[in-house]
Amino acid sequence: MVFKKIRLIGRSNESFENAVDDAVDRAEETLDNLMWVSVENQSVELARAEREYQVEIEVAFELDEGVGE
Amino acid sequence: MVFKKIRLIGRSNESFENAVDDAVDRAEETLDNLMWVSVENQSVELARAEREYQVEIEVAFELDEGVGE
Amino acid sequence: MVFKKIRLIGRSNESFENAVDDAVDRAEETLDNLMWVSVENQSVELARAEREYQVEIEVAFELDEGVGE
Amino acid sequence: MVFKKIRLIGRSNESFENAVDDAVDRAEETLDNLMWVSVENQSVELARAEREYQVEIEVAFELDEGVGE
Amino acid sequence: MVFKKIRLIGRSNESFENAVDDAVDRAEETLDNLMWVSVENQSVELARAEREYQVEIEVAFELDEGVGE
Amino acid sequence: MVFKKIRLIGRSNESFENAVDDAVDRAEETLDNLMWVSVENQSVELARAEREYQVEIEVAFELDEGVGE
Amino acid sequence: MVFKKIRLIGRSNESFENAVDDAVDRAEETLDNLMWVSVENQSVELARAEREYQVEIEVAFELDEGVGE
Amino acid sequence: MVFKKIRLIGRSNESFENAVDDAVDRAEETLDNLMWVSVENQSVELARAEREYQVEIEVAFELDEGVGE
Amino acid sequence: MVFKKIRLIGRSNESFENAVDDAVDRAEETLDNLMWVSVENQSVELARAEREYQVEIEVAFELDEGVGE
Amino acid sequence: MVFKKIRLIGRSNESFENAVDDAVDRAEETLDNLMWVSVENQSVELARAEREYQVEIEVAFELDEGVGE
Amino acid sequence: MVFKKIRLIGRSNESFENAVDDAVDRAEETLDNLMWVSVENQSVELARAEREYQVEIEVAFELDEGVGE
Amino acid sequence: MVFKKIRLIGRSNESFENAVDDAVDRAEETLDNLMWVSVENQSVELARAEREYQVEIEVAFELDEGVGE
Repeated sequence: MVFKKIRLIGRSNESFENAVDDAVDRAEETLDNLMWVSVENQSVELARAEREYQVEIEVAFELDEGVGE
Repeated sequence: MVFKKIRLIGRSNESFENAVDDAVDRAEETLDNLMWVSVENQSVELARAEREYQVEIEVAFELDEGVGE
Repeated sequence: MVFKKIRLIGRSNESFENAVDDAVDRAEETLDNLMWVSVENQSVELARAEREYQVEIEVAFELDEGVGE
Repeated sequence: MVFKKIRLIGRSNESFENAVDDAVDRAEETLDNLMWVSVENQSVELARAEREYQVEIEVAFELDEGVGE
Repeated sequence: MVFKKIRLIGRSNESFENAVDDAVDRAEETLDNLMWVSVENQSVELARAEREYQVEIEVAFELDEGVGE
Repeated sequence: MVFKKIRLIGRSNESFENAVDDAVDRAEETLDNLMWVSVENQSVELARAEREYQVEIEVAFELDEGVGE
Repeated sequence: MVFKKIRLIGRSNESFENAVDDAVDRAEETLDNLMWVSVENQSVELARAEREYQVEIEVAFELDEGVGE
Repeated sequence: MVFKKIRLIGRSNESFENAVDDAVDRAEETLDNLMWVSVENQSVELARAEREYQVEIEVAFELDEGVGE
Repeated sequence: MVFKKIRLIGRSNESFENAVDDAVDRAEETLDNLMWVSVENQSVELARAEREYQVEIEVAFELDEGVGE
Repeated sequence: MVFKKIRLIGRSNESFENAVDDAVDRAEETLDNLMWVSVENQSVELARAEREYQVEIEVAFELDEGVGE
Repeated sequence: MVFKKIRLIGRSNESFENAVDDAVDRAEETLDNLMWVSVENQSVELARAEREYQVEIEVAFELDEGVGE
Repeated sequence: MVFKKIRLIGRSNESFENAVDDAVDRAEETLDNLMWVSVENQSVELARAEREYQVEIEVAFELDEGVGE
């Protein structure tokens, strides 16, 4: 049982929690056995009409099969 | 007047703020003179039925009496 | 087109997002062309009657004219 | 010749070296041209019957073909 | 719209800029919507006949479809 | 359910794994519900007759009762 | 022989050295076998009538008995 | 003689050196006595037609008069 | 009530404390409501006739009016 | 009594402990009064026939005579 | 086969690459078996007539004989 | 003109400044053209009869001749 970790950036106009959920929801569509998330960076995009909260996360999941390139 | 700092991890199904409050509430039961908290790490536990927000904090408080082991 | 970054600390009794908005609102009163914010530190002040969430941010903006001292 | 790096977590009941080997063995099943490993974090899981050594590594390998998503 | 970040190492006998371009060119062959690169480490390989500049980068791109393993 | 983390330094003439075990064994004598350990620093003492491996760890455990000073 | 490390903040109107001594003196009242101190942060409080030097330290000591909560 | 440091981000389509020069040139228009620059971050913007090298720098200069807000 | 932080470098032939005071004194001439200082770097200049202690600090102050460029 | 610290990289096909010993043994041939070692990086070389554990260490020793270039 | 690492600072009026080469050329005059360089800091000296690019590097080389003081 | 940097640890029963001077004095006995010192770590030894302040520094100097092993 080996884990792999990947980096994603989720985004939301509501809150940092929603930005995390945004990225985790996307990961769950194609990956099984998600284990945990660590928050690496939080930022806010100001150049658009509405402020956008962004969270860079590392998601750890259990490897089902081979380690993809 | 010397301060001491300890590390706690609070947890919540709602938000990172609630997870901080969870740990601070627990500390306030037995410690007086809490001064401030710094957020050290934020993470999300995904292996349970519901996502759980976790926050690792350092709590600073004024020492009343001796420094305990 | 050169960007400058400055450090601000915003505060709120509600949430970390509001603390960020507090600092960004203040910056927007006198600065144009705010681009983005990175969250550098999060903390909670406990020594007052009500808990206060604080966020230290770096705000990047496009320089209009000279670089001020 | 471009290299890619990915993060894996290996586990062992024996030693940190075995935990590294655990992750590298898995990577070698589907990836060619593994070059080197850097150890990023070491930890021990205590909540199970037996202590489990865990090592988070970055594995660098030479890219054969396209950069996969 | 979720972003993913991956780590690549590009190489060049000319300059650090060429080493970055080397890795970005390779990524563009199979990935769409590359957004930005951050430089993580710079090094020089001295054990070969000619000095080789190497740059480790993180490339951020917008995810088209599922998050690959 | 709040976790607390403390820092210990274990020592061994055999290996880094034994040094970790040395500290964890000591913690288990008076603390229940140890959860996990992260390795923070590794060093070797050379000024004595025999080389001594030392490991500084953070141990996380579930708080039973009050947060002690 | 296991060591434990704790974080204290000492304060002085004279110098950073006195601020360290302030915290160490307090620790020596209830702890035996203090071994060494590492300086983690230095700061100056300006909001009072007189400037106050503050030093955050980690104190390492040999554990006599059980590891307290 | 007190120094102040500020953070700027310069940009260039040619090289990282030009991006540094871009920011320093701008600073020299309104600030006297620039002393030195440290490079804090290097990145490349890929979302535009041409790749743009960006360098975040800290510029140190000797304060002539008052410390501006 | 928003805080701003700026970076200054103070210098003294006597001690690190005097170097901090040097920079804070200068800041107090034109800024009100200085709150606290954190020490970021300490160095010693050796190339002159007399050794000179230098301290790089971050000074936090409450913003009176607009955020200056 | 002044200490000096130097950086070495030791290597072993057996374990990280052996790799540390490899570098320390070499240092002891020409240096007296070695005091302690801190482990700075651990890695594994995969490009050869056999996996090779590598450890980068800092060795502190007491200076006998002059500080060599 | 043990490696040693030393820190050098090279300088150039042309580019960061030339500054690296400047330091490596000097090292090659008296050291054999240079293996690789990692770039640790980049800066620019502004106090002279011409801007000077400076690069602080760590050079790794294979130890021929004893470890010098 | 290439600079080299080495790490020394100075010690004093009086102050951190004296501990720096202790190490610099020793370096000046055999090295010419010392340029500057950066303070890397400060600690206090408590296991002896009197408290001893220790400072780990990096000293930069201009290389006269060859780069010694």
